[in-house]
Amino acid sequence: MDIVAELLNGSKLAISRAITAVENEYGDAVEILQKIYPHTGRAYVIGITGPPGAGKSTLTDKLTKEYRSRGKTVGIIAVDPSSPFSGGAILGDRIRMNELTMDEGVFIRSMATRGSLGGMSRKTAEAVKVLDAAGKDIIFIETVGVGQSEVDIVKAADTTLVVLVPGLGDDIQAIKAGILEIGDVFAINKADRDGVERLHIEIEMMLDLDQNETEWRPKITRTIASQNQGVVELVDSIEEHAAYMVKTGLIQKRRFARTRNEILTMLDEAIQAYLKKKVANSRFEALTEEVSQRKNDPYSAVKSILAEVLK
Amino acid sequence: MDIVAELLNGSKLAISRAITAVENEYGDAVEILQKIYPHTGRAYVIGITGPPGAGKSTLTDKLTKEYRSRGKTVGIIAVDPSSPFSGGAILGDRIRMNELTMDEGVFIRSMATRGSLGGMSRKTAEAVKVLDAAGKDIIFIETVGVGQSEVDIVKAADTTLVVLVPGLGDDIQAIKAGILEIGDVFAINKADRDGVERLHIEIEMMLDLDQNETEWRPKITRTIASQNQGVVELVDSIEEHAAYMVKTGLIQKRRFARTRNEILTMLDEAIQAYLKKKVANSRFEALTEEVSQRKNDPYSAVKSILAEVLK
Repeated sequence: MDIVAELLNGSKLAISRAITAVENEYGDAVEILQKIYPHTGRAYVIGITGPPGAGKSTLTDKLTKEYRSRGKTVGIIAVDPSSPFSGGAILGDRIRMNELTMDEGVFIRSMATRGSLGGMSRKTAEAVKVLDAAGKDIIFIETVGVGQSEVDIVKAADTTLVVLVPGLGDDIQAIKAGILEIGDVFAINKADRDGVERLHIEIEMMLDLDQNETEWRPKITRTIASQNQGVVELVDSIEEHAAYMVKTGLIQKRRFARTRNEILTMLDEAIQAYLKKKVANSRFEALTEEVSQRKNDPYSAVKSILAEVLK
Repeated sequence: MDIVAELLNGSKLAISRAITAVENEYGDAVEILQKIYPHTGRAYVIGITGPPGAGKSTLTDKLTKEYRSRGKTVGIIAVDPSSPFSGGAILGDRIRMNELTMDEGVFIRSMATRGSLGGMSRKTAEAVKVLDAAGKDIIFIETVGVGQSEVDIVKAADTTLVVLVPGLGDDIQAIKAGILEIGDVFAINKADRDGVERLHIEIEMMLDLDQNETEWRPKITRTIASQNQGVVELVDSIEEHAAYMVKTGLIQKRRFARTRNEILTMLDEAIQAYLKKKVANSRFEALTEEVSQRKNDPYSAVKSILAEVLK
């Protein structure tokens, strides 16, 4: 099977195999990515993040149906960077979405942590490229938690939706502050719960404090995903942000910065691999031993390795 | 003032200035670190992590007093990697500890996030070296949250204490699983709360599942830090782990691995700086532009940069 040709035709099997290759870093992954690269850059990528229990999966489900009814094809990547233990949770959630998997215009894939977190955000971005080349109009990246790694993963998005939920208590404030900066659009899900007014006011207040470089003021939409309430409004507000990004030319800027970061990350990984190959063995161990025994200091050790490796 | 000489004499002012230099990456930071390096490796480093609200600051306070009563000098570094917004919280907590700051044998310092998280764990490790060279016997690294960045920061410790608290609900389970692997010693703080038995059993069960390479079985101590209960037992159990680390030679292994990682991280940072200087400008921007316009792909771009930079 010619994975690349099939993938460009939108074959689900080819998409699935390509993402598996990316996820496991199979030998053909880079070749696939290289070949599909000219066919990327067409999809609109939407990141979805928020605390566990906010109902992100259900909301993604409903958003997908709404986008489908607007004639768009959709790809979903659900990422769990926080722990290998909770990988099952996503898969469990995804079972709910099997109605969607019957739809030829939808592709859903879960990715769990294997290896480094840095690797995880790169792999997510690569999976996005696969779905993009396969012709999906809208790609959702859904994360499980709200840590730094989720923030890094969501950086692959054109629009970031932050999903919050009333009644998570005060301990969550620090988390909220951390993700405030990356939210282009906010949803308060489970909006029939107590505390929705207070949460709404809190978010508005935090947005007032936010000193962003752009003039965009994130909209806050109340949703009850399980009852499909507020979903049309939420898609409208995502589309409004997308239109703003295009109109202002910010989308090019954001994508250029993203490409730049991707290249830097890849460079970094390539150099680390080179370092491991070239100095990891005898010389590096000897230097580490010297430093461990305080016969040398790490700064001088680094200097001598650099002199060996760099032009 | 000769910072290094004063620091080696244990001057609080010199310690403070050296950590400020490290934190802000002042020009003299590397020189200071290089000079003090031969005087490091004597302190015993204890990492303290756990969810917000677990009472880590109060517990650190009591542990410090207990170590002081055992004749040890103590350094404390409180790190908040999660958000610039919550930096104030630590400082607030630290006001409680002002009784300790009157003690010549104790040095307390908060470090908040500035710049990259990767930089944060390096800076924490460097601040530990400052306190180590200044003659502190015991150094606590206390983190605010329980994310990946906290795990990275706590890697600078010889013994890691994980502090949990009853009644945080089920959402916290994933977090618990993530930090389980790094806990050498566990404390259940606020042990007069409901749910202490259940939490104790849960931790034991998770420890049963843990496949660690060592034979060490982490002890779980119940504490009520605010009433100074369980603190002596907790210090005993930390000391037991320290003795185990020394007896088995694991401490050398762990410290060697740490030195290795430190050198790799520094190499990485140095190479990134080199890349920025050497290719960041015209050529790198031109390549990124080509890739952005799909005239080139990132994999080929990386290859050509590497050929330019590496020997």
